[in-house]
Amino acid sequence: MEALLRRCRVPALGARHCGIRAQHGGTAGRPRRLLLSQLFQPLALPVGGQAGPEGRPGEPTCRSQRLMLQGGLIHPTSPGCYCYLPPTVRAMEKLIKVMDEEMQAVGGQKLNLPSLCSAELWRASGRWDQMGPELFRLLDRHNHGYCLGPTHEEVVTALVASQSGLSYRQLPLRLYQITRKFRDEPKPRFGLLRSREFYMKDMYTFDSSEEAARHTYEQVCAAYCSLFTRLGLRFVKVQAATGSIGGTTSHEFQLPADIGEDRLLLCPQGHFAANVETLNGEQTSCPTCGEKLTETKGIEVGHTFYLGTKYSSVANAVFSSAENKPQLAEMGCYGLGVTRILAASIEVLSTEDSIRWPSLIAPYQLCFIPPKRGSREEEGAALLERVYDDLAEALPHLAGDSVLDDRTQLTIGKRLKDAKRLGYPYVVVAGKRVCEDPPVFEVWNQNAGEVLFLTKEGVIELLSKVQVP
Amino acid sequence: MEALLRRCRVPALGARHCGIRAQHGGTAGRPRRLLLSQLFQPLALPVGGQAGPEGRPGEPTCRSQRLMLQGGLIHPTSPGCYCYLPPTVRAMEKLIKVMDEEMQAVGGQKLNLPSLCSAELWRASGRWDQMGPELFRLLDRHNHGYCLGPTHEEVVTALVASQSGLSYRQLPLRLYQITRKFRDEPKPRFGLLRSREFYMKDMYTFDSSEEAARHTYEQVCAAYCSLFTRLGLRFVKVQAATGSIGGTTSHEFQLPADIGEDRLLLCPQGHFAANVETLNGEQTSCPTCGEKLTETKGIEVGHTFYLGTKYSSVANAVFSSAENKPQLAEMGCYGLGVTRILAASIEVLSTEDSIRWPSLIAPYQLCFIPPKRGSREEEGAALLERVYDDLAEALPHLAGDSVLDDRTQLTIGKRLKDAKRLGYPYVVVAGKRVCEDPPVFEVWNQNAGEVLFLTKEGVIELLSKVQVP
Repeated sequence: MEALLRRCRVPALGARHCGIRAQHGGTAGRPRRLLLSQLFQPLALPVGGQAGPEGRPGEPTCRSQRLMLQGGLIHPTSPGCYCYLPPTVRAMEKLIKVMDEEMQAVGGQKLNLPSLCSAELWRASGRWDQMGPELFRLLDRHNHGYCLGPTHEEVVTALVASQSGLSYRQLPLRLYQITRKFRDEPKPRFGLLRSREFYMKDMYTFDSSEEAARHTYEQVCAAYCSLFTRLGLRFVKVQAATGSIGGTTSHEFQLPADIGEDRLLLCPQGHFAANVETLNGEQTSCPTCGEKLTETKGIEVGHTFYLGTKYSSVANAVFSSAENKPQLAEMGCYGLGVTRILAASIEVLSTEDSIRWPSLIAPYQLCFIPPKRGSREEEGAALLERVYDDLAEALPHLAGDSVLDDRTQLTIGKRLKDAKRLGYPYVVVAGKRVCEDPPVFEVWNQNAGEVLFLTKEGVIELLSKVQVP
Repeated sequence: MEALLRRCRVPALGARHCGIRAQHGGTAGRPRRLLLSQLFQPLALPVGGQAGPEGRPGEPTCRSQRLMLQGGLIHPTSPGCYCYLPPTVRAMEKLIKVMDEEMQAVGGQKLNLPSLCSAELWRASGRWDQMGPELFRLLDRHNHGYCLGPTHEEVVTALVASQSGLSYRQLPLRLYQITRKFRDEPKPRFGLLRSREFYMKDMYTFDSSEEAARHTYEQVCAAYCSLFTRLGLRFVKVQAATGSIGGTTSHEFQLPADIGEDRLLLCPQGHFAANVETLNGEQTSCPTCGEKLTETKGIEVGHTFYLGTKYSSVANAVFSSAENKPQLAEMGCYGLGVTRILAASIEVLSTEDSIRWPSLIAPYQLCFIPPKRGSREEEGAALLERVYDDLAEALPHLAGDSVLDDRTQLTIGKRLKDAKRLGYPYVVVAGKRVCEDPPVFEVWNQNAGEVLFLTKEGVIELLSKVQVP
């Protein structure tokens, strides 16, 4: 049979197919240039006074939703459901890499739990009834009930409970996943800020004592702080309500923003920060220092819960203690909104008409703009392409992060305007000074708001500092 | 407000939290060693005559399902739904990287489409009725109907149709995603080979003519051949039925295996290969050369369809032709089963009691086994750890791919047996010869079935050839 199989494979692997593949570069050799005209990023940028898409009629919009629709980043299908278009997937994959690094730095182990969660399991925890209409529910062909998991406390606790012989020596267990979640929002709105399908990073931790679990809680919170700091996002960590998840201690990570749906009260001295939903009545001054609290609105991007044994006692998730006795695991759970962080970043960093990304996770780091076809500087096109290719060779980690705006029927000014709106951290232009000897290129550092004039070597030197996850 | 926020962040970023993080190594500096005792991989390996889990009572099992359950790779929740445990997630992420490379080498652009697909859209294509009970269906809180997408022809075609002004110059468009899919199988079985939730890579292509679409079809098939070849899997490409997806040409990529659910007829000379479901009656000889056809069974791991305008005509997915006339796009769709390829690889490569992975996507490339605690060779433990650390420094791409089996209460023999069952491509043992000068280590190349005795430098030299995606 082996001979037979080898024979059958010949047509698929023969010279003809290799020839076809060679046209596209393949994985070996110099990566081909990414041409903007070939990228699927259907722009609906406003031209002059004409407005781009504003969401569905009657749907409330916010800056990030509008910019993401106009910039070809998302496309709506049903209320609260979006296609994530290629640049969004790129940003999301970068964000996921950063999250993986942070979670693994605190001992996180990644798994992947089913979306279909059995009604039986959710009835046992009481959440089947408690969640009400927020839960998407369905029946399979045998009439067994399921919900589409918005979080996975029940499933992961049952998983750990099934591991007979779990020893205290194996704890803490810090298990996480980064997967699509579902919530039937009463009013999906604001694009990816409040959608019915979204990606979330959720971690579940299992410790041998309350003290150990509190230590885990602090470590995961610190990892969240590190993440937002690396993204360059200003955030506040506030005390929060535990809601339907339950537990006794909870914090939210909030990005202050006018569009935020949470009201926060903050001590100007940094002694106290709370979501107002946790406060009884009219608290106006800091319980520690007495300073008057300031109110702001925030977008929740992370949420942590100290759960105790709420779920482990239902599923009987036990470990053998040092005294060889079965003991319930002390749990915590920790969520980061992946798609929500993308939108919230755009919400807080962008201007009215120009997207700004956290540099680390921008879909593309670089846009190259060659001269207009037929212009006096036209010969500069080859020089710019040389910068593109040499940069890709010198800084291979940026090779796939560079786009060449080959729409040379348009002026540089028009294309630069688009590049500014789309928010590439760096834009390299072959302008008038490309005809000098040596050629000089215009480099826009958009997040710093500065323009530099540099030779090819200067461009490569400058960009050698750019990080990608 | 800025001052206020800065203040609020101080506690989160202060020395106390940094101190906590430092204990875990973080992303900078030498990566900590991965200790097997701390990894969440609940083994249920058979000990002596005692059998491990065999699936649920009455559920048919196969080799890959049994080995994946025993090896702590998957854990069942509901029929056809599994938790993917950490080693499986690692293998899956590696496989996805290889798929991304292959898809992007043929111009694929990655997006991500919603799981909730509106009934309306599926009624328009006729598949709402046609798919019958295989479709998971649900209502949202407003009584709007949805299915959980098993594939996304309707959604992606509507997306492309919504792009007014699409020009023939922008074609071909080759859009793909790698996401979780749903199918209410009548009989979920064989673990990840036929489950109700699974990951699939699905590509949808849009071309300006039938000729161009046929060219795309060949290119994507060639990319599939390249993928399976890189994984070292023997496969056959056979003509296939188009089923509920539709279209006029279709091929399956099959891994020959006794457990396979498809019956294939192959010409021993390689002139002809077909799924029997495409043949009328009793075809026994090759239509080209007249040779007698051989029958084999196969596991379908990929499926390609030339669709023509079946979906583009429903959604009116048009582009402007060179003559500036609207013209329907010619489509193709292409699927690879991600989780199914993982299980099928184990099915065809493993022995009865030992997992074997395609080397490229093994969860971990390397397992280090130090001597038993209290044995004569005990001092060799430090020497082996030195190999681990120096290898991680010399070959940083393998740093995260190495595991130290620190269960030193067990004999080397017992741990080596586990390592063989779990299928690390390489196992490095500090055996008797670790006491020689210079120390000599035992290296098991499990996929080649050979043992080498090497110095530290020899180990690093040997492993420098190991590829990770």
